[in-house]
Amino acid sequence: MSNTNAAQAPVSVIGLGLMGQALAAAFLKAGHPTTVWNRTAAKADQLVSEGATRAGSVADAIAASPLVVLCVTDYGAVRELLDPLAGSLKGKVVVNLTTGTSTQARETAEWAAGVETTYLDGAIMAIPPDIATDAAVLLYSGPKAAFEEHEATLRALGAAGTTYLDTDHGLSALYDMSLLGIMWGVLNGFLQGAALLGTAKVKATTFAPLANTMINVITEYVTAYAPQIDEGKYPAGDATMTVHQDAMEHLAEESETLGISAEMPRFFKALADRAVADGHADSGYAAMIEQFRKPSA
Amino acid sequence: MSNTNAAQAPVSVIGLGLMGQALAAAFLKAGHPTTVWNRTAAKADQLVSEGATRAGSVADAIAASPLVVLCVTDYGAVRELLDPLAGSLKGKVVVNLTTGTSTQARETAEWAAGVETTYLDGAIMAIPPDIATDAAVLLYSGPKAAFEEHEATLRALGAAGTTYLDTDHGLSALYDMSLLGIMWGVLNGFLQGAALLGTAKVKATTFAPLANTMINVITEYVTAYAPQIDEGKYPAGDATMTVHQDAMEHLAEESETLGISAEMPRFFKALADRAVADGHADSGYAAMIEQFRKPSA
Repeated sequence: MSNTNAAQAPVSVIGLGLMGQALAAAFLKAGHPTTVWNRTAAKADQLVSEGATRAGSVADAIAASPLVVLCVTDYGAVRELLDPLAGSLKGKVVVNLTTGTSTQARETAEWAAGVETTYLDGAIMAIPPDIATDAAVLLYSGPKAAFEEHEATLRALGAAGTTYLDTDHGLSALYDMSLLGIMWGVLNGFLQGAALLGTAKVKATTFAPLANTMINVITEYVTAYAPQIDEGKYPAGDATMTVHQDAMEHLAEESETLGISAEMPRFFKALADRAVADGHADSGYAAMIEQFRKPSA
Repeated sequence: MSNTNAAQAPVSVIGLGLMGQALAAAFLKAGHPTTVWNRTAAKADQLVSEGATRAGSVADAIAASPLVVLCVTDYGAVRELLDPLAGSLKGKVVVNLTTGTSTQARETAEWAAGVETTYLDGAIMAIPPDIATDAAVLLYSGPKAAFEEHEATLRALGAAGTTYLDTDHGLSALYDMSLLGIMWGVLNGFLQGAALLGTAKVKATTFAPLANTMINVITEYVTAYAPQIDEGKYPAGDATMTVHQDAMEHLAEESETLGISAEMPRFFKALADRAVADGHADSGYAAMIEQFRKPSA
């Protein structure tokens, strides 16, 4: 179908948890006729009072709009809802914002192709209150034409952060997981430091500004190491792996001496030890990529 | 002694590895009469050609300036150099920029007090080429008056990043280790993601800009979590620990399925599992601080 007026393009939202409600509210606010469905119907009440149309069934929700957005518990729930209605999905564009793995995304894409449904997989890098603000990053993968057809509608969820990645349906899930891994890495690094400094009665609020300065500085290392990773060459422009090993040992010893957990420093050190054992004593930190690429023992 | 003209205050630098050379060069460039000493004398040649004075012995280096900056291999080397010359240190200000633990810094401060020497411990959060630029962060702890007396001289090493922390001599080492822990946390988070996306042929250089956006976003979480850590209350303003657990499991499964290391996600998940077992299923991520504070098993 042609996209006559994006501002009025109808959309259906299936799944009204906190995130689903935020998505539907954002579409409504942007002027899209929005149809909603949730297993527990009461979760639609607020949205209906704001102008959404309550669908009596999943089938009704699908019938109401050319664009069907799903945000449910997991991919099992996606298939449980859609499998019985496969016939009615023909010609629709399904955008699945449910959290899952790249394998689940690719499997769902295959299933969708089998029932002649256009499928986009998506990942939301935001909490519900961030939806429809510039803090929301939304990643999409699958057929580019389908993304472009509905891009104006999808941008209602976050104009600045709506990002098309690739035709590979697995990529939004992979990016999602990769970015969450970064989040935990940063936060755990901060927590280790906060625990260490806490032994000297330094408050976390005292540490946070300097910690954030450091976090920002590290983006420069990320930028510098990325091409080294792509080229498979890791010159030690700053410190060698041996220097990192020594410093990691210091952190582990500090943590042990001061009676806090040394597990994370010991884990990082073990990875560095293996990089050195693999011949990277004089390489820079980017050489660690090879340890992350190895399957777990 | 009075600080008559900071621009001409003499300083001695003991230890001329790459970092020591950078320190001495920065003092020289800022117009300070700079005396240098290194066990292997040839390492002073370049500095001497630029105007530094070569000391024939550590004793001569100490005698030359009221401010003595050390940057050697480790604290063992510091004591090995200074112990025999304790008498000549009386009245001097010793600034030790050697990398070590907070315990070593505090022990050295006790030793210095015993020989009537004013002692500042410092940590350099920079690589040698960053010295004397705004990218260099230098942290000092010990008697504040001594820092202030020589602050103008010390700022030659990094005007913007020269930071006095506390009278507790251990703090510069603790901050140093804490900030390095953050660095490894950020970098390892990025490497996990780069390895994961590499399985789908996404280049690290393609991933880096979005990774850096995420890293910057996380500074807001650090700012939000710090007061929760200080107050010991961890409301789930965004996601609960249960949500994090599930997402960590996804990352671990993705990594295993795609044949890369799942060790770090599994390690993070184990910490989260323990936080949940301790009653923090519905707490926010800041509750993880309690796991980092526990001594390793």
